[in-house]
Amino acid sequence: MTEQEKSVLREVDEDVRRSAKHMIRTARFGSLALIDQNDGHPVVSRVGLATDTNGMPIIPVSSLSGRDADLAADTRASLLVGEPGKGDPLAHGRITLQGSVERLAEADHARARRRYLARHPKASIYIDFADFSIWRLNVQTASLNGGFGKAYALAADDLSLECNDWDAWNAMEAGAVEHMNDDHSDANALYGEVLCKAGAGAWRLTGLDPEGLDLALGDQHERYTYASKITKAEELRPRLVELVKEARTLQGTIG
Amino acid sequence: MTEQEKSVLREVDEDVRRSAKHMIRTARFGSLALIDQNDGHPVVSRVGLATDTNGMPIIPVSSLSGRDADLAADTRASLLVGEPGKGDPLAHGRITLQGSVERLAEADHARARRRYLARHPKASIYIDFADFSIWRLNVQTASLNGGFGKAYALAADDLSLECNDWDAWNAMEAGAVEHMNDDHSDANALYGEVLCKAGAGAWRLTGLDPEGLDLALGDQHERYTYASKITKAEELRPRLVELVKEARTLQGTIG
Repeated sequence: MTEQEKSVLREVDEDVRRSAKHMIRTARFGSLALIDQNDGHPVVSRVGLATDTNGMPIIPVSSLSGRDADLAADTRASLLVGEPGKGDPLAHGRITLQGSVERLAEADHARARRRYLARHPKASIYIDFADFSIWRLNVQTASLNGGFGKAYALAADDLSLECNDWDAWNAMEAGAVEHMNDDHSDANALYGEVLCKAGAGAWRLTGLDPEGLDLALGDQHERYTYASKITKAEELRPRLVELVKEARTLQGTIG
Repeated sequence: MTEQEKSVLREVDEDVRRSAKHMIRTARFGSLALIDQNDGHPVVSRVGLATDTNGMPIIPVSSLSGRDADLAADTRASLLVGEPGKGDPLAHGRITLQGSVERLAEADHARARRRYLARHPKASIYIDFADFSIWRLNVQTASLNGGFGKAYALAADDLSLECNDWDAWNAMEAGAVEHMNDDHSDANALYGEVLCKAGAGAWRLTGLDPEGLDLALGDQHERYTYASKITKAEELRPRLVELVKEARTLQGTIG
């Protein structure tokens, strides 16, 4: 980074970290850049996205595109997320994630596949085809651009999510998501409508992690970040119950 | 390209070329990948887009981002355009353009600046700042993905646009666009509503090239590709008059 580039960077605080994580957790798709192994040329493609429980992007790749051979040869990758809205496309927030990709296998693949399908149900048609593999981008640095004059350089620590026992969390997550969707659709509806302020509807949980919960209603993907992080898998259930109470109170206040 | 990748490619015909060019000409923004000169890592950023009269993408870059130093050090770049709509993001068309960038100066810079501002009027606030330069991507190959099972490999020839005298065309274009917007807003409205079938409104011309005309109505960018290419600057005026007649006839038929 040059002195000139450094001079325009703003300080990274908790709000910036939260905003960066929110952008990554809610992205439906992104642009993945890597090095073409044939000619060393950069090459960028559209990818569908979800995140692993630890917040790192999950990316299915087809070998028919040639991209999985590129990634196997050189794991360095860059991922851009954030969709521009109306007006000048450069006035809208986006984040570039720099890191290296890892091809997931066994339990990691099964979890990534489940979390991806929860957000992209139509991908069930092809996700198990022999040419598809699932990769995870392990982010090392990131560059958040929140619009003109709002640039931030983030380190791995700013985006990483710690958990005292990922194995326990991951073993619990699948069942918890299923249970909430099967038996507590009323709670999910409150999370989407009241906590995320994202409109009424049959919101479904798509993921649960120590920092928050992800929801979807058709193509609309939302996330609610908890006020304080959960430290153990056992704390999830009481937290979800508490959030329903909070949402009902809020609803009473507004309605 | 491996044999497996080749085996899934479809044949490139005139419809494919037309569709690829349309995607490039109407893109408001894209994802630009290049090689970070500090560490050789690929890096992808959001860029605002227009096209030069010859169809090649025009990209303003700020030196504050560090990206113009990267481009100056290694001109190889990759640009992804095409916005996903509803449902699976991988079911929607997009195109990856591979090529090398060129920093524009003097007459080329002035033309690129004008064409960019015609499509992004709010960029007038910063386009002349000392840190901004304008680059053009000279496309060498492209990969069009029109959704599952619809992949095409395009060569430079498939996307290039020839003109018997670019100097004459470019010298004429600025005045012709201004004249149409100042004195023939009724014609522009017909091009947008009837020829592009893009809704009624105060459509403005944003560019004129030998293969078609570009229009904008706020954030909506459209293009009408002529049934046959214009070969000389002098043929433009009669063509525009003829298109008004065609549009009126079509309007009479439907209305």
